[in-house]
Amino acid sequence: MTEGLKNFEVKKEKLKGLLLKLHEGADVEELKEEFREVLASISPLEIPLIEQELVKEGISVKDIAKMCDLHVEVFRESVAGAGNYSHLPDGHPLKTLYFENREIIKDAEMLNLYAQTLSKTQDEAVRKQMIEVLEELVKSLRLIGFTHYSREEMLLFPYIERLGLTAVATVLWTKHDEIRFMIKRLQEFLAKKDYEKFIREAQEASRALIDMVFREDNILYPTVEALLGDGEWKAIRMQEEEFGYYKVRPGEWDPGVEPIYPWQIDPELSAEKILSLPQEVRKAIEKYGLQPDKSGDVKRPGDIDLGTGYLSVEELKAIFEALPLDITFVDKNDRVRFFSPGERIFARPLNILGRPVQLCHPPKSVHIVNKILKAFKDGRKDKAEFWLKLGDKFVYILYVPVKNEKGEYLGTLEITMDVKRYKELEGEKRLLDWRD
Amino acid sequence: MTEGLKNFEVKKEKLKGLLLKLHEGADVEELKEEFREVLASISPLEIPLIEQELVKEGISVKDIAKMCDLHVEVFRESVAGAGNYSHLPDGHPLKTLYFENREIIKDAEMLNLYAQTLSKTQDEAVRKQMIEVLEELVKSLRLIGFTHYSREEMLLFPYIERLGLTAVATVLWTKHDEIRFMIKRLQEFLAKKDYEKFIREAQEASRALIDMVFREDNILYPTVEALLGDGEWKAIRMQEEEFGYYKVRPGEWDPGVEPIYPWQIDPELSAEKILSLPQEVRKAIEKYGLQPDKSGDVKRPGDIDLGTGYLSVEELKAIFEALPLDITFVDKNDRVRFFSPGERIFARPLNILGRPVQLCHPPKSVHIVNKILKAFKDGRKDKAEFWLKLGDKFVYILYVPVKNEKGEYLGTLEITMDVKRYKELEGEKRLLDWRD
Repeated sequence: MTEGLKNFEVKKEKLKGLLLKLHEGADVEELKEEFREVLASISPLEIPLIEQELVKEGISVKDIAKMCDLHVEVFRESVAGAGNYSHLPDGHPLKTLYFENREIIKDAEMLNLYAQTLSKTQDEAVRKQMIEVLEELVKSLRLIGFTHYSREEMLLFPYIERLGLTAVATVLWTKHDEIRFMIKRLQEFLAKKDYEKFIREAQEASRALIDMVFREDNILYPTVEALLGDGEWKAIRMQEEEFGYYKVRPGEWDPGVEPIYPWQIDPELSAEKILSLPQEVRKAIEKYGLQPDKSGDVKRPGDIDLGTGYLSVEELKAIFEALPLDITFVDKNDRVRFFSPGERIFARPLNILGRPVQLCHPPKSVHIVNKILKAFKDGRKDKAEFWLKLGDKFVYILYVPVKNEKGEYLGTLEITMDVKRYKELEGEKRLLDWRD
Repeated sequence: MTEGLKNFEVKKEKLKGLLLKLHEGADVEELKEEFREVLASISPLEIPLIEQELVKEGISVKDIAKMCDLHVEVFRESVAGAGNYSHLPDGHPLKTLYFENREIIKDAEMLNLYAQTLSKTQDEAVRKQMIEVLEELVKSLRLIGFTHYSREEMLLFPYIERLGLTAVATVLWTKHDEIRFMIKRLQEFLAKKDYEKFIREAQEASRALIDMVFREDNILYPTVEALLGDGEWKAIRMQEEEFGYYKVRPGEWDPGVEPIYPWQIDPELSAEKILSLPQEVRKAIEKYGLQPDKSGDVKRPGDIDLGTGYLSVEELKAIFEALPLDITFVDKNDRVRFFSPGERIFARPLNILGRPVQLCHPPKSVHIVNKILKAFKDGRKDKAEFWLKLGDKFVYILYVPVKNEKGEYLGTLEITMDVKRYKELEGEKRLLDWRD
């Protein structure tokens, strides 16, 4: 028996002893202390392996699941390892990410554990139960990509890219996508009842998930902690909700400063800042160099501030022309104020600007136009839709009320489009299917 | 025999004599002179009745059709009646409208004539031929609504409404719609081979078309001639092409003045102007009064001039939010500059503003993104489309290049929408079907 294997056996026995106590109903708080001691000698990467061994030896899955919970508890409280961010206030995005990673480790361990149980058990009832639990778990794991990883890619990465650390962001995104793909495949194997392949890949996916947690804990988080200030974190906090979270619910957090967006930061890193970065990142800088993005403010002179971006009048006009639909806007006084340019399904000449919408319709349908406008103004309806065939076109006409942020009525938008193309679409065509 | 009927017989005999000469190959120029003399004693409204009588008496349809052409010729050249606008330059919108009315009279007469022939003839070959000719003719007559009437409703009426003559515009539009509806019904009768109903309604439609020509010639045109100046006509000329014309092709015409749009005119009519209007219009003013539209300029302070209208920034933002699709715009340097706000299919946080689009995509698909952008910049492609199922949604993603008026590349627009709703639409739902 090699030294490594002997050590592994010792650690396994220690955990086994702990589980026994847990099974016998020992006090969780007491055990937590003991577990923490055991953990100090075990690499977190070893835990799933040990758990797997324990399942083989007949420890009940239920008990091991309990240990997983304990594990996460201890992890959270642990002061060892790459920072626990206990100095950060609840709701700080970095703390949220860190907490999510604890949930990810727990679920990744569960994945492996249940997959191994499925591979060993002969009992049909247990198999059925395992499969159900795994289906739920894998479905849940898919959310990691939409929440935790997406927040990093869309909210954190723009800052480190701006500072010239694009390679770090790209490597992490590539690995995120590998994991997304693995989990998607797991879901497919389950759907196809191909449990052999599932079990093989579940172990790999579990490993990859846990490996990513350590990369993030040890590389990404110390990096952004060193580089971003309260303004940046505030901006991130303001944008998080749209993506959601993985099994955590962050508290409110407001540092009381103005948000600082990626285009507002100084892209030049000082030598001092670079030295404060984790070794792996400093190595990446040595290897790939720094390419700070000095493109400056996103608002060019003369640009219109639209709240979600900045456009020149020329771009705005061209965008309205490029849209695959025609719009006409009547203001709160029922006057035509704008229509989109270009070739249209129903012609709109300049002469109708300022014209009351009631005079733009055949007289016999004016009463309907008035009814729709009234329903919009009263807030009783939020759309009125119509469709008809017109030569080769299938024309869809949608009226919607237009309201400001306070919910006040600003006018009504008429949208007209040929939806024939959409009716004909079948199957799927994805970005990677595109051919020049 | 009453005096009226006797006169009618005399006129008919005169026309019959003319037709005989035409049939025998007499010189057209010579006949035109004679025809003009006959016409001087015949009301234009009587002509179709006379033609119908002649058909009954066995004059060949071919000869009568020849007379119709002659009729239009003479009409055009005629100096009698409600102005022939010969003093106006070719391409002047009023002259174009007047010329179209000559074509309309001719075609309306033909409609009645062929319909009567269809009702009399027993010869199957002639019937077949008549039906074919009528199908073509009715199809052609439908264009009157899309061209001649629409130009009046959308280009002329906004001026007279602004001046307070809304009742005149509304009455004409109502009658236009009645005629549109009649012609549509004629088309339906032909499609259903219900020739009995067709023949009955054809006569009515022919009458209504000709009646409208006289209303326009005698009321609308003298009115707008008195009220509109070169600037207004120039604006109308600039907007005509979008609607097209009924069987005429106006020449270029540019009075060399700035266009004047409806919202730019002084809405108050002077007593002198009112006195220059046709009697029917003065009566309408007495009856309905004048309600000049003093709503003023369509451009409010702070509005953005979008070329096809004026919007406040608040309205613009709300319009982008109300659109039934999400957009993201990357500029000519591949930087994200704008995305539409609100709940989106694919989340877009502020942090991506200014970010190179290549860094907004999973690294493994970046080469495709670059290929699409290159094809757009080179002008080799004008769209790239993708579709996929996403939960309950059928998501359609369209990329299109955005270009300015000179055709220069300004950037690329990503449009994302759930097209499930459109795939489900069946049949038709029209404005008049709407229920509160």
